[in-house]
Amino acid sequence: MLKWKLHTPEGVQDILEKDCIIKREIEERIASIFQSYGYYEIQPPTFEFYDVFAGESGLIEQETMFKFFDRQGRILVLRPDITTPIARIIATKYKNLKPPVRLCYIGNAFRYDEPYQGAKLREFTQAGIELIGANTPEADAEVIALTINALLASGLKAFQIEIGQVEFFKGLMEQTGLNEDAVEKMRVLIDNKDALGIEELVCSYSIPDNLKDIILSLPSLFGDIGVIDKVERNTSNAKSLNALQNIRKVYNILVDYGLEKYISVDLAMVQSINYYTGIIFKGFTHGLGFPLCSGGRYDGLINEFGNNISAMGVAIGINRLMSALEGQQVAFKSWKIDSLIYYLDSGRRRAFEIADELRSQGLIIEMYLGTGNPEDVGAYAKQKGIDGIITVYDEENIELYNLLTDEKVKTTVKALLKDS
Amino acid sequence: MLKWKLHTPEGVQDILEKDCIIKREIEERIASIFQSYGYYEIQPPTFEFYDVFAGESGLIEQETMFKFFDRQGRILVLRPDITTPIARIIATKYKNLKPPVRLCYIGNAFRYDEPYQGAKLREFTQAGIELIGANTPEADAEVIALTINALLASGLKAFQIEIGQVEFFKGLMEQTGLNEDAVEKMRVLIDNKDALGIEELVCSYSIPDNLKDIILSLPSLFGDIGVIDKVERNTSNAKSLNALQNIRKVYNILVDYGLEKYISVDLAMVQSINYYTGIIFKGFTHGLGFPLCSGGRYDGLINEFGNNISAMGVAIGINRLMSALEGQQVAFKSWKIDSLIYYLDSGRRRAFEIADELRSQGLIIEMYLGTGNPEDVGAYAKQKGIDGIITVYDEENIELYNLLTDEKVKTTVKALLKDS
Repeated sequence: MLKWKLHTPEGVQDILEKDCIIKREIEERIASIFQSYGYYEIQPPTFEFYDVFAGESGLIEQETMFKFFDRQGRILVLRPDITTPIARIIATKYKNLKPPVRLCYIGNAFRYDEPYQGAKLREFTQAGIELIGANTPEADAEVIALTINALLASGLKAFQIEIGQVEFFKGLMEQTGLNEDAVEKMRVLIDNKDALGIEELVCSYSIPDNLKDIILSLPSLFGDIGVIDKVERNTSNAKSLNALQNIRKVYNILVDYGLEKYISVDLAMVQSINYYTGIIFKGFTHGLGFPLCSGGRYDGLINEFGNNISAMGVAIGINRLMSALEGQQVAFKSWKIDSLIYYLDSGRRRAFEIADELRSQGLIIEMYLGTGNPEDVGAYAKQKGIDGIITVYDEENIELYNLLTDEKVKTTVKALLKDS
Repeated sequence: MLKWKLHTPEGVQDILEKDCIIKREIEERIASIFQSYGYYEIQPPTFEFYDVFAGESGLIEQETMFKFFDRQGRILVLRPDITTPIARIIATKYKNLKPPVRLCYIGNAFRYDEPYQGAKLREFTQAGIELIGANTPEADAEVIALTINALLASGLKAFQIEIGQVEFFKGLMEQTGLNEDAVEKMRVLIDNKDALGIEELVCSYSIPDNLKDIILSLPSLFGDIGVIDKVERNTSNAKSLNALQNIRKVYNILVDYGLEKYISVDLAMVQSINYYTGIIFKGFTHGLGFPLCSGGRYDGLINEFGNNISAMGVAIGINRLMSALEGQQVAFKSWKIDSLIYYLDSGRRRAFEIADELRSQGLIIEMYLGTGNPEDVGAYAKQKGIDGIITVYDEENIELYNLLTDEKVKTTVKALLKDS
């Protein structure tokens, strides 16, 4: 046998029936919330030309993409996200539509380095929304509120959405006058909450004391909305002040949504600042080492495709959400076979008729396909956890066994029998 | 701008909102029928090791697969079908389960050469089932009946399932004693219904007259079940006779299902005979040049993964089905925004409350995000085809406009207003 015939590549999964039922249920609940806010689903292709993802504002490093060649020698990639293909679609197929455009998606994306439960998940499912052409705190708040409501609809009990604003950090850095390299060093140190490293770097430049103090305090600038008041007094550049004001506005709208208990602020959230241009946020829950979702404002991305239009979006990691729901012991309605039908040849036509009728009423009916002794039927049902057996001897003679746990089957079949 | 930045590769599609609603609806209807027969969904990964698809019984030619390397230099492929990964899963993860195992899937597969509406579709969605570990005419008939019911559930009105049996042709060829190359030549000629070519080939070998006659008649051996009676009288080898008997048994069971009007027979169906081992079938509808679905018995495939167990399955091409449904002008319920809510800041909290309440009742509510004049609201609603506008001035003052077409919004909002 070929060496890898029985194996699956690292980072991809066979999602078997029990998990698949839960996954579909979560996806349906989230899709239904997206729809209720007026977001229309679209499905971009699974692979695209590499050029689509090769822009300056791209969120995803080239190294993490699955790349291959088409027959013409052009580079294709498995989509590392779904936001970028949607940006392409907006720029090419929605350019004449009056904004805002509300779109959503549920699909798989592919990266070499997506962390997942200690391991890496290289194929993962994302459910997300994009709100295009509305650049107001109301738009920011809608995306965050919708994220919270989607997580709640999935059954998640405890979680927190942390909000940052990339312009706050950018304003501070412009004020320092540091060059691009130094800014990037600083960004990485802050992202790692490396207080000592930040102090070393700050002290190696001549930066005014009050500005120095804010930068040094960045790793601790998280918590409730009070953080904004605290830092606002010491902030003196317009860009950073505007960023703080923006967070406050969005927060106040979320208060009107009644969702403030899910919100906290983190001014040290400085990831992907080449991609994001305003509010940035992530969702966390206890026991999960990685964000459940991440989103933000990315007003530059669609312009890479030639259409200068603002956008705000979020992607929820469905696999991570499934882990979180399992961790929080959220129960999902599974399904099982409601009844097994066993028939003799003389009862075959009648058996199919009964099966059709019960299925049309929403019951799940399995036909017994064994060829052995009739005694095997009970053993089979027991082994599969099926409580009801309907035995159809012929057109007239039908027996019901052990229909203990499903009153509906019993009643329906009895009604059927009476009719005949 | 990079050369291919605004393009999608040949054969892949952006499925935009209108089509996406229809696609999801079709998928849900079909999934619900699969479930009602006791088939559990599973989701294999989008890419696998090439070795998984490299078997002797493989249905798909190497040339048609999308291949790439992982970081270790191993060959990966985008799955060209979903049946083969399921065969791997059955052999590795279900080997201790008592058969039959009923599984289904809905997902995308990838091939260079999938014909579609004159062009080629390289990414396409398949919905299918696999019935594993049951090798009886009842099992064959269940898969065919389920296919018919799934197509009916999708809304399709007119279609036909053509049934063949690969053993019929194999039996005839064994009887001729032709070598493998000649058999393959014959198979291709019959597949193309090339009567002249068949005659030339048959006459170049010494084959008994009665056998010659059957082979020459193969391209015309299609139609209703009467074809079986006609050919049975002239067939003398056991394998071919058993194949005919098998078709008749399956047909008789489908009569008991009440589905015989969808069935016809085609003994010249000889595609993929290295993969299929018994009944083989395809679904056709007028105006579509390609089969809607294809399926059959493939008792050899799972054994390639070390588990000798029988299987029967079908894959329905969702994109083709969508085209057929469009061609037959089957209407699908679309959805639209039920109401737009426009608010002043003083009414914001109340506006969100009303939106939440209406959404929880299943309505689709869009918040107006424009920043211009209030007069723009009406123009926006009109342009988006939204009939209802709810204007929230403050906690007390709320107005409803043009709620002409949706009585439900009107009533609900009026009730809300009365409560407040």
